[in-house]
Amino acid sequence: MTTSDQLLGELLIGSRTRSRPETFRAIAAATDEALPVAFSCATAEDVRDACALADAAFDSYRAATPEVRATFLETIAEELEALGDALPERASQESGLTMARLRGERGRTTGQLRMFARLLRAGHCLAARIDPAQPERKPTPRADLRQIRIGVGPIAVFGASNFPLAFSVAGGDTASALAAGCPVVARAHPAHPGTSELAGKAIQRAVARCGLPEGVFSLIGGPEHAIGAALVRDPAIMAVGFTGSRKGGFALSAIAATRPVPIPVYAEMSSINPVYLLPAALSQRADALGAAFVASLSMGTGQFCTSPGLILAIEGDELARFKGAAVEALAGVAPQSMLTASIHAAYDEGVAALEARPGVTVLARGPEAGPHACRSALFAADASIFLNDPVLAHEIFGSSSLILSCPDEAALVEVTRALEGQLTATLHLDEADTALAGRLMPLLERKAGRILANGWPTGVEVCDAMVHGGPFPATSDPRSTSVGTGAIERFLRPVCYQDLPDALLPDGLKAVNPLGLARTVDGAPAH
Amino acid sequence: MTTSDQLLGELLIGSRTRSRPETFRAIAAATDEALPVAFSCATAEDVRDACALADAAFDSYRAATPEVRATFLETIAEELEALGDALPERASQESGLTMARLRGERGRTTGQLRMFARLLRAGHCLAARIDPAQPERKPTPRADLRQIRIGVGPIAVFGASNFPLAFSVAGGDTASALAAGCPVVARAHPAHPGTSELAGKAIQRAVARCGLPEGVFSLIGGPEHAIGAALVRDPAIMAVGFTGSRKGGFALSAIAATRPVPIPVYAEMSSINPVYLLPAALSQRADALGAAFVASLSMGTGQFCTSPGLILAIEGDELARFKGAAVEALAGVAPQSMLTASIHAAYDEGVAALEARPGVTVLARGPEAGPHACRSALFAADASIFLNDPVLAHEIFGSSSLILSCPDEAALVEVTRALEGQLTATLHLDEADTALAGRLMPLLERKAGRILANGWPTGVEVCDAMVHGGPFPATSDPRSTSVGTGAIERFLRPVCYQDLPDALLPDGLKAVNPLGLARTVDGAPAH
Repeated sequence: MTTSDQLLGELLIGSRTRSRPETFRAIAAATDEALPVAFSCATAEDVRDACALADAAFDSYRAATPEVRATFLETIAEELEALGDALPERASQESGLTMARLRGERGRTTGQLRMFARLLRAGHCLAARIDPAQPERKPTPRADLRQIRIGVGPIAVFGASNFPLAFSVAGGDTASALAAGCPVVARAHPAHPGTSELAGKAIQRAVARCGLPEGVFSLIGGPEHAIGAALVRDPAIMAVGFTGSRKGGFALSAIAATRPVPIPVYAEMSSINPVYLLPAALSQRADALGAAFVASLSMGTGQFCTSPGLILAIEGDELARFKGAAVEALAGVAPQSMLTASIHAAYDEGVAALEARPGVTVLARGPEAGPHACRSALFAADASIFLNDPVLAHEIFGSSSLILSCPDEAALVEVTRALEGQLTATLHLDEADTALAGRLMPLLERKAGRILANGWPTGVEVCDAMVHGGPFPATSDPRSTSVGTGAIERFLRPVCYQDLPDALLPDGLKAVNPLGLARTVDGAPAH
Repeated sequence: MTTSDQLLGELLIGSRTRSRPETFRAIAAATDEALPVAFSCATAEDVRDACALADAAFDSYRAATPEVRATFLETIAEELEALGDALPERASQESGLTMARLRGERGRTTGQLRMFARLLRAGHCLAARIDPAQPERKPTPRADLRQIRIGVGPIAVFGASNFPLAFSVAGGDTASALAAGCPVVARAHPAHPGTSELAGKAIQRAVARCGLPEGVFSLIGGPEHAIGAALVRDPAIMAVGFTGSRKGGFALSAIAATRPVPIPVYAEMSSINPVYLLPAALSQRADALGAAFVASLSMGTGQFCTSPGLILAIEGDELARFKGAAVEALAGVAPQSMLTASIHAAYDEGVAALEARPGVTVLARGPEAGPHACRSALFAADASIFLNDPVLAHEIFGSSSLILSCPDEAALVEVTRALEGQLTATLHLDEADTALAGRLMPLLERKAGRILANGWPTGVEVCDAMVHGGPFPATSDPRSTSVGTGAIERFLRPVCYQDLPDALLPDGLKAVNPLGLARTVDGAPAH
């Protein structure tokens, strides 16, 4: 059986599939050719039906025990694995990413589903708190007060083009929303509808296998923005997870903020991820840093939210050496096709715009190649130019980076102050750089969600301590992370129960603790 | 020394005081007369200066240990207590609330400052998480990843008129923001500028006594909305705490959402706090419930966010008995002046508007009284009228409530579905009501932040499990609470540190755990 045999181009509305006369096709990133299977374009009715089912499923799904939800997440992981190579193959055709990368990304996808299953079983994430009654307290008795966190409601998840598995239909937003007890209506990214259908049907099968209400998951798609807008406007939707462009994130945020009932949008948008080469580190290993920088920059053709788009260092021979090493390394990078024609066009536009700015020098360009291959680009400029031209701070999604020369430490600090919010900031440093790094740290803590030393920002570990988020405009909400266990927080809200009879309390708060949750009593841990 | 001797009508900009030629006066709620002391109206320059100082203080204040911040909060509590009766006396003059109530509110205010001090010392709230490096992991090693939460930045706090101590300058928003490591610029409510100055100077003295940077606290005031708008627009401000009207909350939210860098607004706005009298409970104790309802409704002249503005029950003799008891109780309620002339005018307008709606009956009005005394109002209507007329669901701030007769359980459920988001929902029930209550619970969990049984929503315990919040439009952010330890969450954001040398890590994440924080390692508790 080939991948295409499994694809029918259908929308998934709860447990049903639905086809529509208006269709679109996926375009192979590498060849610019239409791939097999015509995919249905969702209508307003499809959005409405999916959201109504999600709303109908919410109360029963959120009442499911953490164990049931954990098993469901694991079942999704199993169903994804059961697809075998069909899933990464189709994803590779649609995205142009390599099979090796996509097999790895599948592991990350199933890994994060299982991480949330473990998190649910540990039970801390529901934050059950009990303040027992104090009937004898003077002057007034205290009531029995109990708090637990419940899902906020159905979630709209927008798949990202650059992670067709780990940040798409069955990706981190979906996993964390389902873990929180929230049904999901996923909007397939039009660049990988086949991958989306495969992943969506895997979730649909998992819903059925686990005996959950069908509205727990639906999948809609189509190339038009109107579908996504209708989804965010639907009154049943209570929060939005989005990874994509700043323009897209702003548009969804504006829609969400002007609903009769405004809802939060967790949009991860854009970041240039400044990398600092501090003097001692640079003098010790300029060549190695140059090569490692290009390896990080060209990973996935630079199509990572955390791609190093800005290098900062104090001018001098060492920086020149770094540049030389980077230029040399860039010449050895084989061009690869970008995810979509429009991403490629935006990349070329961004590079052309940067090239045209006064004071910006082209250090190197990668070779010309196929229709949508990314011509890598390395630029250089002085700090003073950067400070006076906001265009230099714009993200260029793809394998392009700007190396900034600062005359002195003061300029390095000044540029740092001028930066927008970022997902990451990286320091390359040796012990002799500690004082300067210490000066930068308070600034970077205010600017970035993650601060790295002597590494590269690409590669986002899925774990408890990760923050993949950061101050605006890196994301729309710096209080959150979209990777790691903390991602579940986005989709929970606390509810307090005062003097409720045990029979009416949620299981997590009942006297005998039937779920065996970790709970606190008067603020102190207790079981 | 009298209260007025201590008042100079000054703005507090960091450690300085500042006076402006344009002034305004507080109006005594009980007599409608201007009180002593002319208060300076803040200018745009004052806002700018206060915010600049807050921004300058932020890095050093957030780096202060939890112990230092805890001691600071306790010092504020001491300084408030050292004011003796001067504070509740001025507050009573300005607000018309009784000395007994305001002495109690002072206890609540100092109590919540000390609660956050205890919370900081317990150390859980910073959520320190460590995922140690796994250099041997295949296929790729894992970096050392550490996460802690830091303050989001300077906070704008808007004092509420109805809690001149506990929800104003030194109230819950200020306490939780300072606990989170965020400087505060407080905007004094123009209805109690003298109370605000006394509380503000107490905080100013505490800043000095604790040797903290002066920008940790500033106080601005004036009757114009423009001052508040300028504060929310200031680029240094990173979040807003507000308790007040829906109109005010919407206005601040709109300003915050359209800044170049949008920021969260935690606005607690309006709620009618539905109270359900379920059949068995009603048949057992209709008279007692009627009397208790009026006691809750008339507490503080109904000027509580959690005042019971809507009663729901199934029609019949028992409901008639409840109404009779409530009407009788209302006749015994002595009229009291409302907080301000404008609140009183809005109350009268709201009552007149409700009275004019077709199908709405006046059950009882309280007696006429002084210039701004609240004439209590009890209304009745059928469920069908409520479902078709949104005006009936509007909050009337003050001692007014609407009793809804539902023909059957289905109507009770239907009205519940139609409700907007609420701070609270209350069930009066006996064991025989459990099935109906069980049907209502999932709906109420989606509508309210706190669900009570056999009590009244007025009276908000300050504790670990409290949720004083709820779905829109009760608040602008149902993921949060403005009362209880959870209130600190609003002003924290996570930052992740990857492979940072120990010297550059925040103390809370250093290897030897110098702060002795509760931390998790790979998700499991560890010290």
